[in-house]
Amino acid sequence: MTKYVYLFKEGNAGMRNLLGGKGANLAEMTKIGLPVPQGFTVTTEACTRYYQDGKTIGDDIVEQIYAALAETEKVCGKKFGDLENPFLVSVRSGARASMPGMMDTILNLGLNDVAVKGLANLTQNERFAYDSYRRFIQMFSDVVMEIPKSFFERVLDDIKEKKGAKYDTDLNADDMKEIVVRFKEIYKEKKGVEFPQDPKEQLMEAIKAVFRSWDNPRAIYYRRMNDIPGDWGTAVNVQSMVFGNMGDTSGTGVAFTRDPSTGEKKLYGEYLINAQGEDVVAGIRTPQKIETLAQVMPDVYDQFVKIAKTLEDHYRDMQDMEYTIERGKLYMLQTRNGKRTAAAALKIAVDLVNEGMITTDEAILKVEPKQLDSLLHPQFDAAALKKAKEIATGLAASPGAACGMVYFTAEEATAAAKTGKKVVLVRLETSPEDIEGMAHAQGILTARGGMTSHAAVVARGMGTCCVAGCGALRVDEEAKTATIGDVVFHEGDWMSIDGSTGKVYAEAIPTVDASVSGDFATLMSWADAARKLGVRTNADNPHDAAVAVKYGAEGIGLCRTEHMFFEATRIAAMREMILSETEEQRRVALAKLLPYQKADFKGMYKALEGRPMTVRYLDPPLHEFLPAKNMTEEIEALAKELGTTTDKIIAKIDELHEFNPMMGFRGCRLAVRYPEIAEMQTRAVIEAAIEVKQEDGYDIHPEIMIPLVGEVKELAYVKGIVVETAKKVMQEKGVELAFKVGTMIEIPRAAVTADEVAKEAEFFSFGTNDLTQMTFGFSRDDAGKFLGAYYDKKIYESDPFARLDQNGVGKLVEMAAKLGKQTRPDIKLGICGEHGGDPSSVMFCHKVGLNYVSCSPFRVPIARLAAAHAAILEKQGQL
Amino acid sequence: MTKYVYLFKEGNAGMRNLLGGKGANLAEMTKIGLPVPQGFTVTTEACTRYYQDGKTIGDDIVEQIYAALAETEKVCGKKFGDLENPFLVSVRSGARASMPGMMDTILNLGLNDVAVKGLANLTQNERFAYDSYRRFIQMFSDVVMEIPKSFFERVLDDIKEKKGAKYDTDLNADDMKEIVVRFKEIYKEKKGVEFPQDPKEQLMEAIKAVFRSWDNPRAIYYRRMNDIPGDWGTAVNVQSMVFGNMGDTSGTGVAFTRDPSTGEKKLYGEYLINAQGEDVVAGIRTPQKIETLAQVMPDVYDQFVKIAKTLEDHYRDMQDMEYTIERGKLYMLQTRNGKRTAAAALKIAVDLVNEGMITTDEAILKVEPKQLDSLLHPQFDAAALKKAKEIATGLAASPGAACGMVYFTAEEATAAAKTGKKVVLVRLETSPEDIEGMAHAQGILTARGGMTSHAAVVARGMGTCCVAGCGALRVDEEAKTATIGDVVFHEGDWMSIDGSTGKVYAEAIPTVDASVSGDFATLMSWADAARKLGVRTNADNPHDAAVAVKYGAEGIGLCRTEHMFFEATRIAAMREMILSETEEQRRVALAKLLPYQKADFKGMYKALEGRPMTVRYLDPPLHEFLPAKNMTEEIEALAKELGTTTDKIIAKIDELHEFNPMMGFRGCRLAVRYPEIAEMQTRAVIEAAIEVKQEDGYDIHPEIMIPLVGEVKELAYVKGIVVETAKKVMQEKGVELAFKVGTMIEIPRAAVTADEVAKEAEFFSFGTNDLTQMTFGFSRDDAGKFLGAYYDKKIYESDPFARLDQNGVGKLVEMAAKLGKQTRPDIKLGICGEHGGDPSSVMFCHKVGLNYVSCSPFRVPIARLAAAHAAILEKQGQL
Repeated sequence: MTKYVYLFKEGNAGMRNLLGGKGANLAEMTKIGLPVPQGFTVTTEACTRYYQDGKTIGDDIVEQIYAALAETEKVCGKKFGDLENPFLVSVRSGARASMPGMMDTILNLGLNDVAVKGLANLTQNERFAYDSYRRFIQMFSDVVMEIPKSFFERVLDDIKEKKGAKYDTDLNADDMKEIVVRFKEIYKEKKGVEFPQDPKEQLMEAIKAVFRSWDNPRAIYYRRMNDIPGDWGTAVNVQSMVFGNMGDTSGTGVAFTRDPSTGEKKLYGEYLINAQGEDVVAGIRTPQKIETLAQVMPDVYDQFVKIAKTLEDHYRDMQDMEYTIERGKLYMLQTRNGKRTAAAALKIAVDLVNEGMITTDEAILKVEPKQLDSLLHPQFDAAALKKAKEIATGLAASPGAACGMVYFTAEEATAAAKTGKKVVLVRLETSPEDIEGMAHAQGILTARGGMTSHAAVVARGMGTCCVAGCGALRVDEEAKTATIGDVVFHEGDWMSIDGSTGKVYAEAIPTVDASVSGDFATLMSWADAARKLGVRTNADNPHDAAVAVKYGAEGIGLCRTEHMFFEATRIAAMREMILSETEEQRRVALAKLLPYQKADFKGMYKALEGRPMTVRYLDPPLHEFLPAKNMTEEIEALAKELGTTTDKIIAKIDELHEFNPMMGFRGCRLAVRYPEIAEMQTRAVIEAAIEVKQEDGYDIHPEIMIPLVGEVKELAYVKGIVVETAKKVMQEKGVELAFKVGTMIEIPRAAVTADEVAKEAEFFSFGTNDLTQMTFGFSRDDAGKFLGAYYDKKIYESDPFARLDQNGVGKLVEMAAKLGKQTRPDIKLGICGEHGGDPSSVMFCHKVGLNYVSCSPFRVPIARLAAAHAAILEKQGQL
Repeated sequence: MTKYVYLFKEGNAGMRNLLGGKGANLAEMTKIGLPVPQGFTVTTEACTRYYQDGKTIGDDIVEQIYAALAETEKVCGKKFGDLENPFLVSVRSGARASMPGMMDTILNLGLNDVAVKGLANLTQNERFAYDSYRRFIQMFSDVVMEIPKSFFERVLDDIKEKKGAKYDTDLNADDMKEIVVRFKEIYKEKKGVEFPQDPKEQLMEAIKAVFRSWDNPRAIYYRRMNDIPGDWGTAVNVQSMVFGNMGDTSGTGVAFTRDPSTGEKKLYGEYLINAQGEDVVAGIRTPQKIETLAQVMPDVYDQFVKIAKTLEDHYRDMQDMEYTIERGKLYMLQTRNGKRTAAAALKIAVDLVNEGMITTDEAILKVEPKQLDSLLHPQFDAAALKKAKEIATGLAASPGAACGMVYFTAEEATAAAKTGKKVVLVRLETSPEDIEGMAHAQGILTARGGMTSHAAVVARGMGTCCVAGCGALRVDEEAKTATIGDVVFHEGDWMSIDGSTGKVYAEAIPTVDASVSGDFATLMSWADAARKLGVRTNADNPHDAAVAVKYGAEGIGLCRTEHMFFEATRIAAMREMILSETEEQRRVALAKLLPYQKADFKGMYKALEGRPMTVRYLDPPLHEFLPAKNMTEEIEALAKELGTTTDKIIAKIDELHEFNPMMGFRGCRLAVRYPEIAEMQTRAVIEAAIEVKQEDGYDIHPEIMIPLVGEVKELAYVKGIVVETAKKVMQEKGVELAFKVGTMIEIPRAAVTADEVAKEAEFFSFGTNDLTQMTFGFSRDDAGKFLGAYYDKKIYESDPFARLDQNGVGKLVEMAAKLGKQTRPDIKLGICGEHGGDPSSVMFCHKVGLNYVSCSPFRVPIARLAAAHAAILEKQGQL
């Protein structure tokens, strides 16, 4: 029989997939003898079963839960619903991957009309017992039974008013008792039955609620953003309650073994005296620094420092711990490898190597490639910053600088970002519902909450700049205003925030690129030594090429030549070319474009200092270069300029109109019909290479890439033009130059017939943007109409344009790579779609044996690190 | 060393691939002792070498040609350029497949200033000799050297005028000598050198010209139309000349062993006394019937009848022969299996079986599936025909009836046909340049030429109705009028012609479907017994379903449900559905559509009489159902009808606008977003099946097909809706019904992940229209902009939308079939793209193991026959 329930003492850290992260670590801490309130974990497999069985928990699982419960009661010496010594538990989710705040938690479960009396006796604190009971009723009703919180809050307000109480703390035990009665009435009114008095019934409902919460919309969104598969499921941890809110010798807190923001090696954390754990995480009260605990409870502090050291040594990584002190006794509630900023991740990884705790390979694996993104994000321009004056300071919750327009709700921030605006999301505090708006913002500013508040944790995970707990900030969400001192922000006003310093500015401060040295350089040098995959960049101008080289690009994998033609001086010649009626006219116009294109190539060759460059020939449909039909003035001007009529131009626009431009007259189809375009481009590529060779001594071997090939014969035809022209140019110049002609693999037919295509192609570059569109049969521009429904219905879990669809598109890539090598064993294989900068896709490219990935300049370090991950995981047999 | 040249006596009929059809049969006739003017064949491999070697003939090949030439001279006892006994040859193309008139021929080669005297001496006919010489100079100049004919014709006219001659025949030997001198002057003026006097030089140039002609535009077009690969190349036959134009005991002709039009078993043919072979084929003089030769030259006739019998028995098929009589002696110039009409093909095949000459399998293979098309083409409505009065009669050159508007040039006919007009092409006579116009015409009418004229041969090949040699017809191509008696036709006037009777009508006569019995039924019954592949039809209404059943369809493979929604009464509800703002509104509109859809399904189930039907769910983008944005009146009416505003409708039109509708919000994506549509359609399918079962007793197992699936989860989702709804309907009705849910495979990703898709899909139907578009990455609507260039440059040789691209798209089909069977061994596999009616594609479907093909009703017999071909060829190990 499958074991679905494990006591903490039965598990260990290696059982993460089955027990979830939290459950596995509770088991591990139990194993190494740390003080952990005992309990048990219902496995992720039970969650999967729950969904398979039509959202019910099978009898066999129920039985195992009851058995574990009985065993735990015995260990703790308490009993569910007992008048003497009532057993109370917390019920928490815990997936394989951390999903902070995404799923549900229920505390104080086990309280009923009897147990509450037991608790009062035991603690000699009736008010505490009934306060706990009313909290439990509200939490159970809200989380498990979906009765809106507001019903309960209204009762609370009502009683406070009646009693003349300002705060909850002004209410006494009798008030609490009354609240309990009223809360139970609400429950009965809403659900038609009494509030459940049987703790076992409470427990089963709570476990189901946690299972259900795996599939709530914000959890789904979080998974999509973090590439967490929907079929993993969550485990449920049922743990004996300890109370941090039993007076001044009680408390609760979180701490890190190193600073999660900078990586500095010192205990870093917070606690609240007389509070429950959720109070810290929710960020409602601002907590004390952990160091001060040394004064308040020196023994507990010493014990905690020792435990922290034990855990870091044991896990060989920075730990993020939760703990509770119940009447002077320390309990560990959780430990896990701590989330950290990119800078901290780098520093910790490098430090751990230097401390002799881990190898460089392990250090590389400790830094998530995606995280690097935040390091490469802009910082404020130093000069501009000097002149700027901060108006407030909050917690430096997630580093980087942001400058944008203020928005007050996640929805509005999202909407504004989608129109291209830069947005700073300003909130009293954030909650899991805000996650999409946070993802779209440049920066996040909150009035409440600490370094471990929701806003701070999530922003760090996203690599988004965040200033949290800015006490000077007043937010009026209804009026859509924020006030700091006498500065009032309205929606759309500019604001700048610095997540590394916590400073807030009432002005737009320009930002500049980050520098890349120190720990970054150290770790990247390890990564470069470890990786096998080359990393190139997609760049169309000398500036981008230079930036990419700075970030470690080993060449250009995709230079889109058409981007060069959109500039005002050039588009005129381009349009003349398009409007030509004869080949001769076309050649005249192309002759005008040649010097521009050649000069661009020369600039890029120079920026690359001898590194290779792949030049893709003209790709977009020609109508993209013409004015739209309704741009009357522009058409008239164009007609005048070219000495033609507006009618002729409009006729050409009509002629070039396409029903499905994505699948129209573009790519190499242009060169097949107008070979003189490929001739001009070849002349530009070769002449530029020869001249740069003569001027700078770089030995350049141009790589000429023909786009949108679907059939070897079309490549052969265009290659014929290219080779012939190149030979002619070399003869003219009296210089020999090696060059390669290859193709994009971006049409399914090219992938399927790659063995034939490789007869002509000397290299393949997978254009996974178009390949994804055609393999899925939907266009990126149109998919918005239905992708929402696809995510909602869990048909797709990640955006196939951001993360390579390894199952479908990837199969074609793999097939093409194999077929290509069959024909031409030394064929060079690369990828130049946007997936080239996505870590999971980079790993895939390594796995299927590509030679390099090419991505945007800012993603080059990410790709280098991801490539190193792939090589190391492969070495470890884990890829 | 490769042998590139074969003497006729070295070859045989089995060497068709190497020697071409003509060469192989000349060798075979030589082998069985028939009177064949001797010569040799330069192989198709030499042609391929010619192109590989940059359009030159390798030295080794030249050597072999000269050796064969010397041997032939010896056999014939003649010598090139000899004064006594000059050796003259014809040089003709001859590919593996017959391509009549597509490539070049040169006659009388070997004539020079010396040989012409020898010919004059030998024939004692100086005028004949110089006439031959001047014809050769002109032919050589035109065909080999590309000097336009008009230069020579001008000289001829000039001399005729000078001599007061009306016809060529009025010119005497001296006139011919003068013409020769003037022709040689033109040659020198145009080419800068003397007309080549060395017959070997003439020969090599002529051979090269034939090789070159393999790639002329009309040959390329013909190949594309007839699926002949471009890399086959043509052989060249060099054959000793015999002369049919040496007086009244000479002649030339063509004949068939059976009537190529009806299949009747009797010698059928024509001849011209005192003429060269090209005169017959060109149709310039109207020839005598072969029977009359019995009177003119009884011995020759008897010999010919014997030879014809020998050849038919030898080849076990109807033969098409060319022969020449030189001064009373019969020479066979060619034999081949004769082209024939579909009706003749059927009759001959069935007769040959009845005569015990061939097996039914052989009979099946003798009928080209594509040919059946003409049999299934409409005939005139009998009643209408009774009232119609013919105004002229020509030769019944290719059967079937046609009714269309008169056009006088191939270009204009093509242009008109492309705008959707039905066209009758009226010409004095046709030439190979007209081939595209002929392909687009409903019928062809010519004033000149016999049953073996260009128009007649090509039209029969195409299955297009043709009336040839209509003597009463006068055509003024410049004025664009045709006159028959006192009826004058202008461009665009209606005309009807009957290719089975030769009658011409000055009116539009409605046409009706052909009947399918007799030989047709016999052969098809053999085919049905032989084939393994099922044949279904694509039909969307009861009428088409009934027609298809008549033609042998075994069910419906594709019922496109959206076609039912475009009718006026229905589109209103459809639009209401699209414009709905809530699910409730959508359900109200769908409820209005339900009765229509159900009634349609019932009609089709009844027409099918229990045969299976595959229903495809709503597929097109919704904007197709809305008026265009500029249709203001229609939008206003719609707004009024639906009680909404024009603004709202325009907003919806904007919302539904797509950049690439082919790759947009359509197919199952509609059902994923609006599952209530799939619910309604399921209700219609199941209720209709239950009611027809109750009313007619047919036991119907509906096959529900979800379109545009790319990922198994989207199929699973929609299937869930379908199954749930179907169960509900069956419960309501208290009737159980087996049904299947399957999917189209029309998106590359579905093909690549077919193993997963098959977990949900109970059948696959390959939608090769869309699959071709997405695999090639071009849309059918837009490909016109570049496909021309692709054909010109030999990148594509056939239209991938007409003939399945086996190399690319076919690979995906094969892969999907294999993967699908892996998961679900009994999965049913079909194809419902237009390729389902294309014979070569049907053969492919057999080969990769599909269960059935589905095609338009009129193509059902073609598919049945093609499926039989595939099964028989497979049995013979030839597939």
